[in-house]
Amino acid sequence: MNHKELIVKLAERNNLSKPEIENLIDMTTMIIKEQLLDGKIIGIQSFGSFEVRKKEERLSVHPATQIRTLVPPKLVVNFKQSTILKEKLNEIKL
Amino acid sequence: MNHKELIVKLAERNNLSKPEIENLIDMTTMIIKEQLLDGKIIGIQSFGSFEVRKKEERLSVHPATQIRTLVPPKLVVNFKQSTILKEKLNEIKL
Repeated sequence: MNHKELIVKLAERNNLSKPEIENLIDMTTMIIKEQLLDGKIIGIQSFGSFEVRKKEERLSVHPATQIRTLVPPKLVVNFKQSTILKEKLNEIKL
Repeated sequence: MNHKELIVKLAERNNLSKPEIENLIDMTTMIIKEQLLDGKIIGIQSFGSFEVRKKEERLSVHPATQIRTLVPPKLVVNFKQSTILKEKLNEIKL
């Protein structure tokens, strides 16, 4: 499901227009991004939490040439599913 | 920032009430969860995408006792940040 389909589905279940929904989604992700770029954790009830984590630098070895390259440290957004979501996923037969 | 603070902030920037915002957030995460439990990828523009991934079973060795335990396979929600978010994070000095 992409961004557009999500907006259509939300508009169907609400009495808001598609532009209004789109604006709200944009605003929500904007606030989440502001918090993340500010180094803060952001939690959404019964869904999960977002946090920026630092991945340390590491040595990467090219499998064929054996040449080593230093991969610099980087920041990534980490999502941790809520307990409720985790339990729902655990119900699925693997 | 927690769920409640996010709702307050969204209500401040909109002309919607807090219960309306809360309802929309719940509905959004509910749709995302439905898609995830259905094995589908869901993408949110300029933010990122969510996907359920299977973590294979693995042997865990207790550091003190050396006792090996088989950790069963499990499903986890994986979030992949968008290119725009990645670039913004890259601008932060490490």
